Amino acid sequence: MRGDGAVAPGRVLVVGTGLIGTSVALALRERGAGVWLADADEATVRLAADLGAGTVVPDLRDAKGIADGAVLAVPPAAVAATLAHAQDCGVAEWYTDVASVKQLPVTQARELGCELSRYVPGHPLAGRERHGPAAARADLFLGRTWALCPLPETSSGALAAVTALVLACGADPVHADPATHDRWVALVSHGPHLVAAAMAARLAPSSVPSGALALAGQGLRDVTRIAAGDSALWTQILSANAAPVAEVLAEVAADLAEAARMLTEEADGEGPKSVAALLDRGQAGVARIPGKHGSAAREFTAVQVVIRDQPGELARLFDAAGAAGVNIEDVRIEHSPGLPVGVAELSVRPAEARLLVDALEAGGWPVRR
Amino acid sequence: MRGDGAVAPGRVLVVGTGLIGTSVALALRERGAGVWLADADEATVRLAADLGAGTVVPDLRDAKGIADGAVLAVPPAAVAATLAHAQDCGVAEWYTDVASVKQLPVTQARELGCELSRYVPGHPLAGRERHGPAAARADLFLGRTWALCPLPETSSGALAAVTALVLACGADPVHADPATHDRWVALVSHGPHLVAAAMAARLAPSSVPSGALALAGQGLRDVTRIAAGDSALWTQILSANAAPVAEVLAEVAADLAEAARMLTEEADGEGPKSVAALLDRGQAGVARIPGKHGSAAREFTAVQVVIRDQPGELARLFDAAGAAGVNIEDVRIEHSPGLPVGVAELSVRPAEARLLVDALEAGGWPVRR
Repeated sequence: MRGDGAVAPGRVLVVGTGLIGTSVALALRERGAGVWLADADEATVRLAADLGAGTVVPDLRDAKGIADGAVLAVPPAAVAATLAHAQDCGVAEWYTDVASVKQLPVTQARELGCELSRYVPGHPLAGRERHGPAAARADLFLGRTWALCPLPETSSGALAAVTALVLACGADPVHADPATHDRWVALVSHGPHLVAAAMAARLAPSSVPSGALALAGQGLRDVTRIAAGDSALWTQILSANAAPVAEVLAEVAADLAEAARMLTEEADGEGPKSVAALLDRGQAGVARIPGKHGSAAREFTAVQVVIRDQPGELARLFDAAGAAGVNIEDVRIEHSPGLPVGVAELSVRPAEARLLVDALEAGGWPVRR
Repeated sequence: MRGDGAVAPGRVLVVGTGLIGTSVALALRERGAGVWLADADEATVRLAADLGAGTVVPDLRDAKGIADGAVLAVPPAAVAATLAHAQDCGVAEWYTDVASVKQLPVTQARELGCELSRYVPGHPLAGRERHGPAAARADLFLGRTWALCPLPETSSGALAAVTALVLACGADPVHADPATHDRWVALVSHGPHLVAAAMAARLAPSSVPSGALALAGQGLRDVTRIAAGDSALWTQILSANAAPVAEVLAEVAADLAEAARMLTEEADGEGPKSVAALLDRGQAGVARIPGKHGSAAREFTAVQVVIRDQPGELARLFDAAGAAGVNIEDVRIEHSPGLPVGVAELSVRPAEARLLVDALEAGGWPVRR
């Protein structure tokens, strides 16, 4: 575990015991830290405490000096006010937050006159579809990127303390200034979310017959999957990062409108060429997305195996791979609508593909490289 | 296997021995059919024959009456001319093709005066990232949808014969007229491909620092995955279905441009509301996409397990599930950049989730529902 070598913070106050706050608390408890919990909602903080996340602090005004550091795990718009109040109460030496946008809370903290030398804006790139303390997990941040956005005013002591907290949670700290952070997440998270939603929205009208959807494959499922997320939460996030997200969306919209125009005018021979150029740019973009272990996404070789849809089938498959000493880096199961068979696509290091194919074929598996 | 009850066609000629043609040939051979192979490229057809796909026919002009039916597995723009030539040579009683667009070949076949009563336009919804006969597999169509677009002129005998062929390949025949088919695939396949490409294209410029991409998660990977496909092939497909694809792209572009505008004008309070509406429509669209076994995409419960990245780890996990009698419907492995651990998300029937959690916990696995 990455956090093994990190010094766990001694005493931490977590304000806001939803999914992220409670997960931070659980992770720190596992590292031996003393953790205090506060939340405006009494049932929520009680549940987090019952889960073993820490000890409830009923009122920050009675908690002067209770912790070395405080993690403010509240919604973006509430970060600055919470920081101001916590600093007024003097609950800790240093402060960080976990909001998925950074310019909004930083601007507001400045306006409220918060003590910025003790504040390190942060954003763990982790989450789940579920919310609340019951969904929390101590391992939520394991191997995840955790953005830190130290301000010019931020002291080196506060930055060192928050970095230690991030490492204790098992995450990888990455530095960016707040504006850069917001542009980056607009590009890799917020923009893609709305693009997926706009594509999925085409399938919603009752004018689209279910016959059309019967032709849907894994490609459509992947493109639209994240659009199933919580609309209310995402509206908040997108509003708080409006300008950078709007920029990404406008660019995507312009490319798509241009592709539509070129396809319509294809008769003049220009259409396919410009569409091909967009496809080439898309291909180049996909190739830049890091995969597992931060390595290039396409460094693995896919081995496809036909499997029956029954208990124990995948176990037998992985047994055979394990017995051959081959490490499966990723698995994707191709769906087989209406049929009790499927195809498991196993990603392995290219050097191990031959070994895996041989081992599976020897075991009688129908396999393709 | 779906095809078990179907009567296999007796003698079939496959013209075009690429991935799809050779896969059809292999599937039919498995059902006991006599299969003949033809391809303009001699090395390609020879390889297909070497793979056991059938017997080479060097020249269709010498093949009068050789088969009951012919499968024309050539690119969309070549279908009509191939059909005209094959009918001139009298190689078979009935004909079908496998092109991923249907209006273009049908219109051209009409213009060329082909005998339409013996022709059933078709399109198996199956494919792979690789091409050529070496990538072919007899099980490529198992459980896949196979669109059939019988024309007003198509005889019931030809339709029955092609339907039997589809069933023999293990696929599910779905009927649509050519124009409807092309609109449907524009919506569920061709449009999403360009949308993914346009999003991925945002990541391509060298002005996007790798730091931004370090923040990428599974959501971005899923949205953009299909954009890694072959640009040249996709340019052909998109050009041949230009109008319906352009319509889908224009609608997505309009929604994204509007979302960008609303986010920019958010100060007036209207932005978030219209963005929320788009997100809601996206959510409704995703919910309509069928999942595995044609069932609703979200009927399974996800169980998350922390796994170490080493040979045999997944085998042990699936052993534990299999021993509990629980069938894993799907697996997704969460990547852990830079760390030797990951999270396997196992999809199971809701009624079996408790059983699986208990079994895994008893086995010492760190598990979350």
